[in-house]
Amino acid sequence: MSKPKLGYLGTGLMGLPMVLNLLKAGYDVVVWNRTASKADAAVAAGATLADSPADLAAKCDVVMACLTNAAAVEAVLFGENGVASVKGPALFVDFSSMDPELTKTYGARLRAANGMGWIDAPVSGGTPAAEAGTLTIMAGGTEADFAVAEPLMAPIAQRVTLMGPAGAGQMTKLVNQIIAGCTMTIVAEAVNFAKKTGVDATRLTEALAGGFADSKPFQIFGPRMAKETFENPLGTVAMMLKDLDTIAAVGAGKAATPMTEAARSIMRESVNRGRGEADISTLVTTISEDS
Amino acid sequence: MSKPKLGYLGTGLMGLPMVLNLLKAGYDVVVWNRTASKADAAVAAGATLADSPADLAAKCDVVMACLTNAAAVEAVLFGENGVASVKGPALFVDFSSMDPELTKTYGARLRAANGMGWIDAPVSGGTPAAEAGTLTIMAGGTEADFAVAEPLMAPIAQRVTLMGPAGAGQMTKLVNQIIAGCTMTIVAEAVNFAKKTGVDATRLTEALAGGFADSKPFQIFGPRMAKETFENPLGTVAMMLKDLDTIAAVGAGKAATPMTEAARSIMRESVNRGRGEADISTLVTTISEDS
Repeated sequence: MSKPKLGYLGTGLMGLPMVLNLLKAGYDVVVWNRTASKADAAVAAGATLADSPADLAAKCDVVMACLTNAAAVEAVLFGENGVASVKGPALFVDFSSMDPELTKTYGARLRAANGMGWIDAPVSGGTPAAEAGTLTIMAGGTEADFAVAEPLMAPIAQRVTLMGPAGAGQMTKLVNQIIAGCTMTIVAEAVNFAKKTGVDATRLTEALAGGFADSKPFQIFGPRMAKETFENPLGTVAMMLKDLDTIAAVGAGKAATPMTEAARSIMRESVNRGRGEADISTLVTTISEDS
Repeated sequence: MSKPKLGYLGTGLMGLPMVLNLLKAGYDVVVWNRTASKADAAVAAGATLADSPADLAAKCDVVMACLTNAAAVEAVLFGENGVASVKGPALFVDFSSMDPELTKTYGARLRAANGMGWIDAPVSGGTPAAEAGTLTIMAGGTEADFAVAEPLMAPIAQRVTLMGPAGAGQMTKLVNQIIAGCTMTIVAEAVNFAKKTGVDATRLTEALAGGFADSKPFQIFGPRMAKETFENPLGTVAMMLKDLDTIAAVGAGKAATPMTEAARSIMRESVNRGRGEADISTLVTTISEDS
């Protein structure tokens, strides 16, 4: 069986390295980006440039996308010259992160419009993992659609898990963010507690490594918080707060989120104090100001 | 140099596996437990049973203890037939978790009573790590006392760090418990969120392994919470709540603990609902009842 021809919408910080890894794996890839010049590096590496999402869809078997937000995904699907206007490609795989309810709506609308299948496949690991082809992908969709999508994700991911029907990938990303966002806030609280009670906070990461307190956020942000090193942000307070706001909205009346609420309130206070665009490690500053 | 003869007070959930690992490493161990029958397994594995803490101290070079709380430690040290009434053993190593200020007091009182050195050495990792001999130990005490204690902890720990003078081990344990206790609560919140929003919670541990959400509490308690498997408690709600109460008391007016407060309130509610002695994984039940 020959390899399916792939389309990729959005060659930004995350999309470009994913396209490069697909090309390296021997796939033909057609690319499109709203600002066409941002696709230059993909074209230089062997990708074909499409004029519009519809033009791209007409040339492909499977269409992938990694876009900024739900509005951008809606535009490439259902806007002028959108993917939904073309009959032909079998499947849409969306690596963007967005509200799970919107995802389900888009999947259903697309299937009704042109019969395309849907996999929501938000990613975790950031640009380092996108470049290394070691993303963690949480997928939602039918088993039949997933069977088509799974091998295509092998060049870009170290782990792809089907979590349930359409929307389940986005919902799992929110579950991930509950834990990630709260853990960063807890590490800030713990580092401040150590400092205020005479424990050498710079020794914590080593002393607690491998135990119940250990995690990637602890190893990465703990030392930054202990030394108050906030340069070269690894992620901003505002970005994480946006995710916790989505979690609160999705959970409302459905799933209690008291820990997320506590973390969200500290992040909101951080934004109020002018640290929205600062590194997430500055949560330790906000907690420290409260005593 | 022959191996020092060890005494071990308290052969409960944590103490028993530690004693078994010390015996396996070739140490002679004398044990004592308030309820003597709880020492049966240690005796069956080769330990000698003492009649009282004083009887145990008279037979040992180094006395270790892992007890429920400060009152229990105070009783074995300074109560009738307590360790402090015996001159002979060089060092007391306390694996119990308790208030750092009380620890300092006990260390000073013991040294004044019979000249014994003091290491506070609270542990992290729960019964799985106690059984595997891979506990994380945060120690407080003098460098001279630590030099005696450190090799004795090799059979039970993967990492032992001297964090400062007497009391610094307990304070670091509180820092550890801020993160561990809150993380368990967050994992409960995340698992409940997954269940209530149609995500297959039993796949979370695998799907998010190696990412920002991953941790030992996530790997150990996540699957128990997802499957509602609460048998063979790995740690009770009441035990963790006790630690968070201490954190709140020590932090009061000194270090803000908003995340700990949120977790504490959920644990207190769990106790109110009759799950104080249940596995910590039952936090998912409490959160689930709140929606």
